[in-house]
Amino acid sequence: MLTRKEFNEARQRAAEMIRKAGIKIRETEAEKMDVADFGLGHLSEEGAQILTFFSTERVSVKVIALFPNQTEPEHWHTAVGSDPGKEETIRVVEGTVYFYIPGPDTLCLGFIPEGKEAHYTVRHEVVMKPGDQITLQPGEKHFFQVGREGAVMYTFSTCARDALDPFTDPGIIRVTKIVD
Amino acid sequence: MLTRKEFNEARQRAAEMIRKAGIKIRETEAEKMDVADFGLGHLSEEGAQILTFFSTERVSVKVIALFPNQTEPEHWHTAVGSDPGKEETIRVVEGTVYFYIPGPDTLCLGFIPEGKEAHYTVRHEVVMKPGDQITLQPGEKHFFQVGREGAVMYTFSTCARDALDPFTDPGIIRVTKIVD
Repeated sequence: MLTRKEFNEARQRAAEMIRKAGIKIRETEAEKMDVADFGLGHLSEEGAQILTFFSTERVSVKVIALFPNQTEPEHWHTAVGSDPGKEETIRVVEGTVYFYIPGPDTLCLGFIPEGKEAHYTVRHEVVMKPGDQITLQPGEKHFFQVGREGAVMYTFSTCARDALDPFTDPGIIRVTKIVD
Repeated sequence: MLTRKEFNEARQRAAEMIRKAGIKIRETEAEKMDVADFGLGHLSEEGAQILTFFSTERVSVKVIALFPNQTEPEHWHTAVGSDPGKEETIRVVEGTVYFYIPGPDTLCLGFIPEGKEAHYTVRHEVVMKPGDQITLQPGEKHFFQVGREGAVMYTFSTCARDALDPFTDPGIIRVTKIVD
């Protein structure tokens, strides 16, 4: 749950970060940006700001801005009907992103959000800088976190059905509630 | 057919345009950029410079740089096996793009390359500026041209099989021949 004020401030801050990263966005796109607190109520620790370029039944392109030290919680993309599940490529535009995927535990530069040890299970760390990209196959668990400067990245994917993504943390609700 | 010198100069010039447009690219990406003269041998009139971010069986993201007044010839994307054909979204990053699709002839700001009247058949003009985007369905004929400043754009699509695209101009060969 976020207050309207928190929601609007996060949107504005993220839009500024995206523009500062050199990405030209329309005001109408900024005004529709998704601010996701994942129902956890502490946006600055676990959350994401997501601006959509377009989203069709076949392709989706979005820009994600994460505030300093913010973490997008662990999740994966499942099959839906005839779709084997979302294939997603993240490409960093600005800042440093600590990306976590299945593999040997090499978590070093990032950290697990406090009290959430059980909900972040993949700990193979990939440090990503501007121009770096990583492709995730359907079903591949992942989470990511950014450094002290925050970061901006693209997500290029097949059809996005974010509302259906499972998260490791059972407390997560994908739709952000806003209270006035 | 392009000389090695023409090819290398076009690559370098396009990489500079892309970077100037604010897109961070790796040197390894610039070094693999495709310079397409479409076998017509007059790159500055009909041609395109295409840098690939990644290209999988499901998603492809590329950056296209066109030099001042350059035209990418009319073509479309056909079905291949179980794939209904490429769905493509072009998003302009820098410069003005004159995009042509089926519909009433409104060609006004752009022009048909000299002597090529028969090979440019769709003439419904869409003027695109930075932040504008257009989605093309499989089979939809299109060509595009840029203004005097040149332009840089993204192409976000389903699987790209450029070598299989049909062009209206029967003289076109999609693979660029380079002579040393």
